[in-house]
Amino acid sequence: MENVYDFGLVGLGVMGRNFILNVADNGFTAMGNDLDTEKVKALIDEGGDTDRVNAVVAVSAFAKALSSPRKIMLLVPAGKVVDIVIDSLLPHLDKGDIIIDGGNSFFTDTDRREAYLAEKGIHFFGAGVSGGAKGARKGPSIMPGGSKAGYAAVQPIFEAVSAKYNGEPCVAYLGPKSAGNYVKMVHNGIEYGLMQLTSEMYDILKKAGKFSNEELHTTFKTWNDGRLQSFLVEITSKIVARKDTLTEGDLIDQILDKAKQKGTGKWTSQNAMDLGIPVPSIDIAVSMREISALKEERIQADHVYDRPEVATIAKDKLSTLTEEALYFSFIVTYAQGLHQLSDASKEYGYGLNIAEIAKIWRAGCIIRARLLADITEAFQENPSLTNLLLSPSFIEKIKGTVASARALVAFGATNGIPLPGLSNSLTYFDAYTSSRLPLNLIQGQRDFFGSHTYERLDREGIFHTEWEE
Amino acid sequence: MENVYDFGLVGLGVMGRNFILNVADNGFTAMGNDLDTEKVKALIDEGGDTDRVNAVVAVSAFAKALSSPRKIMLLVPAGKVVDIVIDSLLPHLDKGDIIIDGGNSFFTDTDRREAYLAEKGIHFFGAGVSGGAKGARKGPSIMPGGSKAGYAAVQPIFEAVSAKYNGEPCVAYLGPKSAGNYVKMVHNGIEYGLMQLTSEMYDILKKAGKFSNEELHTTFKTWNDGRLQSFLVEITSKIVARKDTLTEGDLIDQILDKAKQKGTGKWTSQNAMDLGIPVPSIDIAVSMREISALKEERIQADHVYDRPEVATIAKDKLSTLTEEALYFSFIVTYAQGLHQLSDASKEYGYGLNIAEIAKIWRAGCIIRARLLADITEAFQENPSLTNLLLSPSFIEKIKGTVASARALVAFGATNGIPLPGLSNSLTYFDAYTSSRLPLNLIQGQRDFFGSHTYERLDREGIFHTEWEE
Repeated sequence: MENVYDFGLVGLGVMGRNFILNVADNGFTAMGNDLDTEKVKALIDEGGDTDRVNAVVAVSAFAKALSSPRKIMLLVPAGKVVDIVIDSLLPHLDKGDIIIDGGNSFFTDTDRREAYLAEKGIHFFGAGVSGGAKGARKGPSIMPGGSKAGYAAVQPIFEAVSAKYNGEPCVAYLGPKSAGNYVKMVHNGIEYGLMQLTSEMYDILKKAGKFSNEELHTTFKTWNDGRLQSFLVEITSKIVARKDTLTEGDLIDQILDKAKQKGTGKWTSQNAMDLGIPVPSIDIAVSMREISALKEERIQADHVYDRPEVATIAKDKLSTLTEEALYFSFIVTYAQGLHQLSDASKEYGYGLNIAEIAKIWRAGCIIRARLLADITEAFQENPSLTNLLLSPSFIEKIKGTVASARALVAFGATNGIPLPGLSNSLTYFDAYTSSRLPLNLIQGQRDFFGSHTYERLDREGIFHTEWEE
Repeated sequence: MENVYDFGLVGLGVMGRNFILNVADNGFTAMGNDLDTEKVKALIDEGGDTDRVNAVVAVSAFAKALSSPRKIMLLVPAGKVVDIVIDSLLPHLDKGDIIIDGGNSFFTDTDRREAYLAEKGIHFFGAGVSGGAKGARKGPSIMPGGSKAGYAAVQPIFEAVSAKYNGEPCVAYLGPKSAGNYVKMVHNGIEYGLMQLTSEMYDILKKAGKFSNEELHTTFKTWNDGRLQSFLVEITSKIVARKDTLTEGDLIDQILDKAKQKGTGKWTSQNAMDLGIPVPSIDIAVSMREISALKEERIQADHVYDRPEVATIAKDKLSTLTEEALYFSFIVTYAQGLHQLSDASKEYGYGLNIAEIAKIWRAGCIIRARLLADITEAFQENPSLTNLLLSPSFIEKIKGTVASARALVAFGATNGIPLPGLSNSLTYFDAYTSSRLPLNLIQGQRDFFGSHTYERLDREGIFHTEWEE
């Protein structure tokens, strides 16, 4: 049993177990490793119908079992665990072996690890994996970056296991260093934005349209048959239809409205601020998860304030408004995330190809959507497109839907229904398309109190005014 | 001239020069130090009417001139310069001497420096100084934290030079470690929010009310005589009235609408995300400065999109709406920043007294405002107040103004005037006061694709559903 397995995988949680079974399904032999005997046993049991998958607890046996050069993927929690696992593997590896970090590691950690392992002759690269448990099992979107030689050795396996869009694998080498983890981070930031927006449409359909869960199911299902076709809209239609097993009602009505987060959305926002790129539709999605966590305060605050009575909008009209507003705000959110990627590419030297990224997001990943085919085309037509909102085909899509976004933001403000994701998408759009913004006043204020100087519209140079004479 | 000066100051830029003259005005003797001969000369010239102020280029002479224990304040750019200056001072100092960082240092840098200098027997503390150039000269708000013994030695000087509110000095020891720099950081985050909001009111008054600059001047001036009385509203009334010296018109109309930033607003947002505290009115102010910087893209985007024609609102009505909306959103912005301070206090062990902070912000600093007297009272009445929005007196203020915020957000959305600060303040309010939010759907989605589990409304425990059977 030595030197025979094509692929090794450390970390046999739900993602790892599913990914390794996927590898075996595709004709490769794969060896799993986990410190937890139960998880090793579970994989052997689950993979019982094929002799292509196996698992062990001992790291030495695991390493011995792999063919050369070893291809070892880690699917373990981001953070210190990754370093611990790497250090436990190292004594058993040979020069030229390959380690792949498939988790959501922070991108600077990936850069550090690549440099550390390069010194030891080990190829290391980060490869974000999206698609959840089912994606890992049936075909995820994979976002590798870093060591190109390392990726070349794993490429046949990754291309086989990844999701396919019209036969094309949803995996591609994205760039050097932490490009893979970075792209995955922004993918997740966009995901935060889209989830927040979807929840807002769900909310207003219920509150202003009195949609029942069954009607919500039909609405989201219909949307998913059209231009809004996307994984998140699809699962929303299923989630709202789900019957509860513990009560008579629907499960959605019993789920607590405190949303958790694991940090990738927050990192996207924080790093966008470091780059100076505005992503307010993502920022607000992070804020809303935080506000949701303050459930007890919210209940207290709800008691002391009156809320406007919500006006009713006819179901037909409201479903058109929400469909258009969601389409509009999905586009604006992708635009912000892709803008961040373009800028990060320059800042960190990733050399990203945005069309290629949109391509591998078309299937397998959580933010997969019909829109991504259009986004791919937009960036194929114009690879140096600064912002999706400047692409001719998207200009038309936005022009056709922005009026509904305006109407709903106005309605939400008037009727006390918070639509922060939608309103940030709209104000981003309105600000981004304004040749003049009132921030001349802010520059005046800064010069007034801090002598920070300002520029002028009518002539070059740096100016300062003695405001108080 | 040895061991005679009460106070030393390194960094004779506009803030440093003004601060040291302020110290001398208050009867203390003060020695300045700067590597730049011109700046040293400028201070000596400017302080010529008093023998209490002096300056030298040589660090050794500077240190020798100071009485024991030396009290040396740094007003140099945040970052590496602070470390360089500290290291250049160290050979000339004795145990028990005191170094004060008066700049906007990042709070973790302050913690690091305090530990580094404590080992050498030097007291070190960060003390944020707000009030701009004029504040430094005439009386700033000072926010010291860190070494309590160090602060005690400087306290008489700081209390003398600080701004006074009803005779009370706008300086107080805020807490251990980096408490002073942290509070100053959040002060600046709030400042970003208030400036953005003010610029939005300026914008809508012009666009929907066709206010001339003279009418804007009168409007802001009138506001400043009422409950909106604040430094930022006051200077806005002056800025819009300023005649241009290079053209026939008003200066405000020639200032380029690209707003710069020096990082403290960004840090506030980024750190709030680390703490999990929502501060969307600050986040969006950071984003808007970023969007403003994209001037060329904005011009390009403006050409390809049509903008709704802006409806007109009668001047009287609009000035009431904007005054109320600004008051509402100022309160919400302070609420967010103070919420962040409360949480940071627990997280970092600062033991902050929010009433005390509001007190020293009542005069001298950039965010000084009549509102801060009310905020001080609210936290004096209830020191454990979680959120300003839950204080009885503020509940009344909010109830009386929220309708105007609703009307303006709706108007801005409909008419294509971006009011992102106001709408984030409103959606924060509407979300914070909602006992139920639609984030149950987000928890359903997370459990669907990632088995992240959820909680329920009707029973305790952690639940997971097999969504696709």
